[in-house]
Amino acid sequence: MSETEHEAAAGGTAGAGPTDGLRAGRRRLGVGMVGYAFMGAAHSQGWRTVGHVFDLPLGARLAAVCGRDGAAVRAAADRLGWAAAETDWRALIARDDVDVVDICTPGDSHAEIAIAALDAGKHVLCEKPLANTVEEAEAMAAAAERAAARGQVAMVGFNYRRVPALALARRMVAEGRLGTLRHVRLTYLQDWLVDPAFPLTWRLRKDRAGSGALGDLGAHIVDLAQFLTGEAVAGVSALTETFVRERPLPEASSTGITAAGTGADPGADPGADPGAGARADGRSGARSGQVTVDDAAVFTARFPSGALATFEATRFATGRKNALRLELNGSAGSLAFDLERLNELSFHDHTEPAASAGFRRILVTEPGHPYLEAWWPPGHGLGYEHTFVHQARDLLHAIASGTAPAPSFADGLSVQRVLAAVEESAEKNAVYTPVSGPTPTPAPVDASVNLA
Amino acid sequence: MSETEHEAAAGGTAGAGPTDGLRAGRRRLGVGMVGYAFMGAAHSQGWRTVGHVFDLPLGARLAAVCGRDGAAVRAAADRLGWAAAETDWRALIARDDVDVVDICTPGDSHAEIAIAALDAGKHVLCEKPLANTVEEAEAMAAAAERAAARGQVAMVGFNYRRVPALALARRMVAEGRLGTLRHVRLTYLQDWLVDPAFPLTWRLRKDRAGSGALGDLGAHIVDLAQFLTGEAVAGVSALTETFVRERPLPEASSTGITAAGTGADPGADPGADPGAGARADGRSGARSGQVTVDDAAVFTARFPSGALATFEATRFATGRKNALRLELNGSAGSLAFDLERLNELSFHDHTEPAASAGFRRILVTEPGHPYLEAWWPPGHGLGYEHTFVHQARDLLHAIASGTAPAPSFADGLSVQRVLAAVEESAEKNAVYTPVSGPTPTPAPVDASVNLA
Amino acid sequence: MSETEHEAAAGGTAGAGPTDGLRAGRRRLGVGMVGYAFMGAAHSQGWRTVGHVFDLPLGARLAAVCGRDGAAVRAAADRLGWAAAETDWRALIARDDVDVVDICTPGDSHAEIAIAALDAGKHVLCEKPLANTVEEAEAMAAAAERAAARGQVAMVGFNYRRVPALALARRMVAEGRLGTLRHVRLTYLQDWLVDPAFPLTWRLRKDRAGSGALGDLGAHIVDLAQFLTGEAVAGVSALTETFVRERPLPEASSTGITAAGTGADPGADPGADPGAGARADGRSGARSGQVTVDDAAVFTARFPSGALATFEATRFATGRKNALRLELNGSAGSLAFDLERLNELSFHDHTEPAASAGFRRILVTEPGHPYLEAWWPPGHGLGYEHTFVHQARDLLHAIASGTAPAPSFADGLSVQRVLAAVEESAEKNAVYTPVSGPTPTPAPVDASVNLA
Amino acid sequence: MSETEHEAAAGGTAGAGPTDGLRAGRRRLGVGMVGYAFMGAAHSQGWRTVGHVFDLPLGARLAAVCGRDGAAVRAAADRLGWAAAETDWRALIARDDVDVVDICTPGDSHAEIAIAALDAGKHVLCEKPLANTVEEAEAMAAAAERAAARGQVAMVGFNYRRVPALALARRMVAEGRLGTLRHVRLTYLQDWLVDPAFPLTWRLRKDRAGSGALGDLGAHIVDLAQFLTGEAVAGVSALTETFVRERPLPEASSTGITAAGTGADPGADPGADPGAGARADGRSGARSGQVTVDDAAVFTARFPSGALATFEATRFATGRKNALRLELNGSAGSLAFDLERLNELSFHDHTEPAASAGFRRILVTEPGHPYLEAWWPPGHGLGYEHTFVHQARDLLHAIASGTAPAPSFADGLSVQRVLAAVEESAEKNAVYTPVSGPTPTPAPVDASVNLA
Repeated sequence: MSETEHEAAAGGTAGAGPTDGLRAGRRRLGVGMVGYAFMGAAHSQGWRTVGHVFDLPLGARLAAVCGRDGAAVRAAADRLGWAAAETDWRALIARDDVDVVDICTPGDSHAEIAIAALDAGKHVLCEKPLANTVEEAEAMAAAAERAAARGQVAMVGFNYRRVPALALARRMVAEGRLGTLRHVRLTYLQDWLVDPAFPLTWRLRKDRAGSGALGDLGAHIVDLAQFLTGEAVAGVSALTETFVRERPLPEASSTGITAAGTGADPGADPGADPGAGARADGRSGARSGQVTVDDAAVFTARFPSGALATFEATRFATGRKNALRLELNGSAGSLAFDLERLNELSFHDHTEPAASAGFRRILVTEPGHPYLEAWWPPGHGLGYEHTFVHQARDLLHAIASGTAPAPSFADGLSVQRVLAAVEESAEKNAVYTPVSGPTPTPAPVDASVNLA
Repeated sequence: MSETEHEAAAGGTAGAGPTDGLRAGRRRLGVGMVGYAFMGAAHSQGWRTVGHVFDLPLGARLAAVCGRDGAAVRAAADRLGWAAAETDWRALIARDDVDVVDICTPGDSHAEIAIAALDAGKHVLCEKPLANTVEEAEAMAAAAERAAARGQVAMVGFNYRRVPALALARRMVAEGRLGTLRHVRLTYLQDWLVDPAFPLTWRLRKDRAGSGALGDLGAHIVDLAQFLTGEAVAGVSALTETFVRERPLPEASSTGITAAGTGADPGADPGADPGAGARADGRSGARSGQVTVDDAAVFTARFPSGALATFEATRFATGRKNALRLELNGSAGSLAFDLERLNELSFHDHTEPAASAGFRRILVTEPGHPYLEAWWPPGHGLGYEHTFVHQARDLLHAIASGTAPAPSFADGLSVQRVLAAVEESAEKNAVYTPVSGPTPTPAPVDASVNLA
Repeated sequence: MSETEHEAAAGGTAGAGPTDGLRAGRRRLGVGMVGYAFMGAAHSQGWRTVGHVFDLPLGARLAAVCGRDGAAVRAAADRLGWAAAETDWRALIARDDVDVVDICTPGDSHAEIAIAALDAGKHVLCEKPLANTVEEAEAMAAAAERAAARGQVAMVGFNYRRVPALALARRMVAEGRLGTLRHVRLTYLQDWLVDPAFPLTWRLRKDRAGSGALGDLGAHIVDLAQFLTGEAVAGVSALTETFVRERPLPEASSTGITAAGTGADPGADPGADPGAGARADGRSGARSGQVTVDDAAVFTARFPSGALATFEATRFATGRKNALRLELNGSAGSLAFDLERLNELSFHDHTEPAASAGFRRILVTEPGHPYLEAWWPPGHGLGYEHTFVHQARDLLHAIASGTAPAPSFADGLSVQRVLAAVEESAEKNAVYTPVSGPTPTPAPVDASVNLA
Repeated sequence: MSETEHEAAAGGTAGAGPTDGLRAGRRRLGVGMVGYAFMGAAHSQGWRTVGHVFDLPLGARLAAVCGRDGAAVRAAADRLGWAAAETDWRALIARDDVDVVDICTPGDSHAEIAIAALDAGKHVLCEKPLANTVEEAEAMAAAAERAAARGQVAMVGFNYRRVPALALARRMVAEGRLGTLRHVRLTYLQDWLVDPAFPLTWRLRKDRAGSGALGDLGAHIVDLAQFLTGEAVAGVSALTETFVRERPLPEASSTGITAAGTGADPGADPGADPGAGARADGRSGARSGQVTVDDAAVFTARFPSGALATFEATRFATGRKNALRLELNGSAGSLAFDLERLNELSFHDHTEPAASAGFRRILVTEPGHPYLEAWWPPGHGLGYEHTFVHQARDLLHAIASGTAPAPSFADGLSVQRVLAAVEESAEKNAVYTPVSGPTPTPAPVDASVNLA
């Protein structure tokens, strides 16, 4: 009746405990997260889980979380599993036990925090879109490049690259299963703004969010289009629209994801605001305000290879909750995907005899699929949050191996340039607008795949 | 043991026979069809069947079919059930037993035949797109207007309005089930040109077909967008592309739908050519020629109500055979449809409580659905060709009632103007291009629905 | 400007006209149909259309239709396209211009009519189920065997074998694509009896219909199971249930498919009754009566190869209109099908690498698919009624070639024996009940496929 | 620049740390888990996560995990996050810091461990099936009843009740949305035994697993049928089959889920064996052995209300990875579900007008759906493992409130009796076999729902 107590043996790492799944003898990095609302909760789940599922070269310790409101951030630290709480992001960066700074704030603070963190020698993971302007993104990419020379890693949180089905899609494209690409079409459809009574949260204010559906949803599908094809968008022609131009201001007491408890806003993230906090969203006294971002953006595009693309991002597609849908058509095959069924990838192999060809539904839960060997048996699907576990895993691998992670800040900048071209085209009567700046080096195909 | 022979009683209508399903005492119109390939075969099935299924105010007699090659058109008449054959469309129009001229030729002959038929006092059904140019379409619409004053009817063959699911969709939009429209998205995806060895049939020559995927497929989705929304497209921003710019010329002996027997071309229709015939497609001696039409067109659009739209028409979407897919999102609900599953309509009712809301798959086979009462019990679906039976039915009702049929030539002209704006925008670097001309009166909502 | 009138040349076949699509010089068989309601209408559409679509060795002429009520049958003849009407099926059989007798009556008259027709030297097509009892079916099979020796053909109307997707499924099984069969599961779900106010039509009376969901729906799925696997069911274990045991009697004036105009009964077929007519369904004075058939039957089964099967037939599956769904699982692959999406077949190829395997949706509209070359381009789907066109085509081919058609009366008998075993098992507390009688020779795989 | 360190404040609970999400002042229960393979890993993820997502009345501390092999269990403790490791389950039960014993071993050890734990005053969570025999299950239920009198809780791990879509389904049934139930059909299809070279793991040995597909998969669908309908199965008629009767013995070194590294066995769980360990699975020297359990079971059933049911459980359905599919048809509506798309529930409301009725796909990700308020915004789906988080949550609520949890051991016994009746029927030639024993009280509808 032998008892084997591990507390003792592992006591040297108190706080993180002996129970984070890391193999003995491996080093743990301290993570410091800024912002703790929707994205912060998702990232926390990723950091908490990664070591228990994947065999990692480096561990992660949830060292500290940062938010403006002391009581709120302490409660968040308790709830989300962070060992400490900070109310100033500069203090967070300054902590010795923070090796990685994870930025989950609205876009207007990304550049300042990320550059400061990189300059302070920290690795950085930054939520998407990388920034609110191309200029900010350029400065961030430059900072990342300087930091890379010092062995630091900077990654942008386009987490959907870590959906196993999309990592598989990238692998299949890279293997040539689609042949010459002809068509790319992506939509990202949500419906949480349909009600005109939905309040004017920070996501509807250009000064905070940069743009509306374009930056929030469009950024994802632009990144995925570039990730999956291995090409950078060459130019775009765009229309945007704000269907509901005035909305009630949030209550002064509004403090969370749910915008006055309706639960409908998938991203109001006032707690994520490191400088102003939730109160910035409540302007008591005022009754309504102007929506200063787009509700929807539709655009066509060309890829260097000649492929034609269509993109649509909206928060007004009634009944579509998270419909990131995409299809690629090539001369040898096609792929299709819908985020609302994220464990599935549809593949049509055009080299099959016509009589037995058709789109097959690959249930992406096999051990041979990206990331899946570490999880459950075939057919036991994953969910949205697992993308953050995979993101944490890939970042830790990148840091351990000294490999530049994908998507890099350069990739984030590339997306930002496309978004800027979309806005420019929309202002110029939809005229075709080339994407400015140097074509980024395509992300290495297998950064997120082969490791898995 | 009474025997009731009907031949005797019905002997007076020899040729059409007593067996076309028309109720006793009702008049039969003679139909004369020009062209007899893919569209001709489909129209023939419509004319042959309509009287056996629907209770009609007027009957239809398949009087004569016309094509340039005498032997071929006689064989077609036999095969398709036409009482006579003609080799000159002017002779067809001149026949006393022809009351309705049904034009199934390539677009370059539509205007001449249709205007001549209308001026000769005949009713006209003309395949889509109405014409190859706006000018032709304007002349046709003017001729139709003159003829309408004389009680003649002119209709354009946008047969998909007669898919029961789409007629139901129109009814639901008209009933206000979608609320304020926000988004319209339509694709029409096929893949029969993916193989660069596919020959240069008439559909790939601008002089014959007017345009490529745009006029063939894009015309359908533009018409449907206008039909379903009840609005005319206000303006467009477009990109077009010809992926394979040179193709082998067809064999001199190539004579049909299948382009050298591959069965893959869903529309090569040389027999439909009233002036030149199949031989025009075969230029012996030459090896290859220039493709002078678009392979694909993508465009965004605005509707007067403020809704944003995306359109995509292509013959290069590998694995998509006839994927006319559409979705409408309004403030109160959404509708979705896929022609590859034409007995189904998806509807999301946004007025439902969120906990039980979702896109429902309406199996459009109930007696209360448009056109369905005349057909089979619930769940026993229809196919593609039934749209032509319904088209014949609606045309006969329009003639009998003296009601202007929908889609009218004015509707066809409206589509033509959108296609012209698409081409103009594509030439002008995708700049947003308003659709010229007067806004057509919206098609009466129920022309094709309430009658059914 | 040559005009080619065909009436003259073809004048010798007045009535049927020159326009039935048959190639010159080929013989036409006269068809005489008994019953003209739902099945009669569907068969008529098959006979009217077959010659215009397929290149046939023999033509078909709609010679005469038979029903008890003279006025009603004459109206039906007009509507459905039959040249003559009869009120006595013996007179129909006696007609010189009737070569094929097509029996579309309720099951209680099948044996008498079919045997008489065969003995009179006619070919016979008989609706399913072949009979109401095994004894009747045995007598019919014996008559068919005698007639076969004289060159006559007898076929049972299991029309779903002629759904192209199911003919393709059979071909794939025969090619070994599934390997060793392990599981067979079929359901046939409808919902038109859910309302207890639905009247007691002939389909709910054992004396007329033989059984309820079992014979109507179960017969189809038993036949398909045997057709697709190439094996005869070895034994069954069954439960049956009548959920609503008493129903209102139909109105005396009730005369059709729709049971008092509701349109909901997909099979009330009083006009199909050659001896009693519609009036048999209306017992004025009475208010309600006993339902004497099953509403639903569920059974498990074994196949000789060791495969396990489940079957379910019901008219109480709310929301399922015509859900004939099946799946076969073998060691090398699986097939799945749903009649509500009849242009699709799902196929999983288990020999594919696991990482790219999955059920593929084959859109069964390619020229290489059974029956499809004669129809429309890829993606332009067929409907329910086309199974009757195909059935007519295959019967004409069988007659022309002297080949025994499938499904033969022996196949129909085999199904009848399974149904009888189901009823016996249900009466004996579900005990496993072997199917009696000699194992029929498997239907030749390609009877309905290779010809196509 | 205030820093708020929480380590200090929370120092008293070192080991579990301050970071398990529990609100200050709430008590933490220690959990001791027996077995640590597939189920153990899933349960661990549930225990680790629950406090960070849900607001709990009681916390959970991963106190100790138990397995026979000391090195292996220590490694598992590290990987899965358990504070201590034990090699004897009796020692685990005896630990003062263990309040809840979580049993994740094969079925042959459930009764002994569970009864000992209950008798020792611990709460118990036991994996399904509850036991290998009815006798064991009865003893366990009796022990649970005795323990309940002392305020202890015993729950069986039918985790699929905690799929939000299925909890929603139960709520809708209880609300009467289906009306009178007519049909219940469930399948649980997997394919990991198709390959005859797959080794003879413990799951294929009757002495360890009790039965094969029946107990592993069939138990789930029997429980769900009873849970969803609120009725106990009245009787069954069953066929079972072992398709591959002899298999190679596992390698002596085989030690895990993946059976020689193929990753295909979703449940080989040798580490879960508290008495024998992994070595029991490897009989070196022998080459192959007899499979002593069923590969598949099909059965029909009756419910007390008169509904008919079909069940199918198999590990030989090629291409089906985890296809737990179910449909309920009632007089007022129907529900359908597929575990491979676990975020969706299909609902047909038969009270809708027929013209707009149809199965709607409810994306079960709304805040008003069971368990969902605590998770992500609408459309951001969950995965398989979340059922274990919900299970942990519901168990902690039950303990905190002193409410009997569902599914109770009595529910587990009820399932066991159905499984026994299935086996008895299969042995008795499929004769209908009533389920013995008292009808259990239906699980309170909302035990797992209203709390959520």
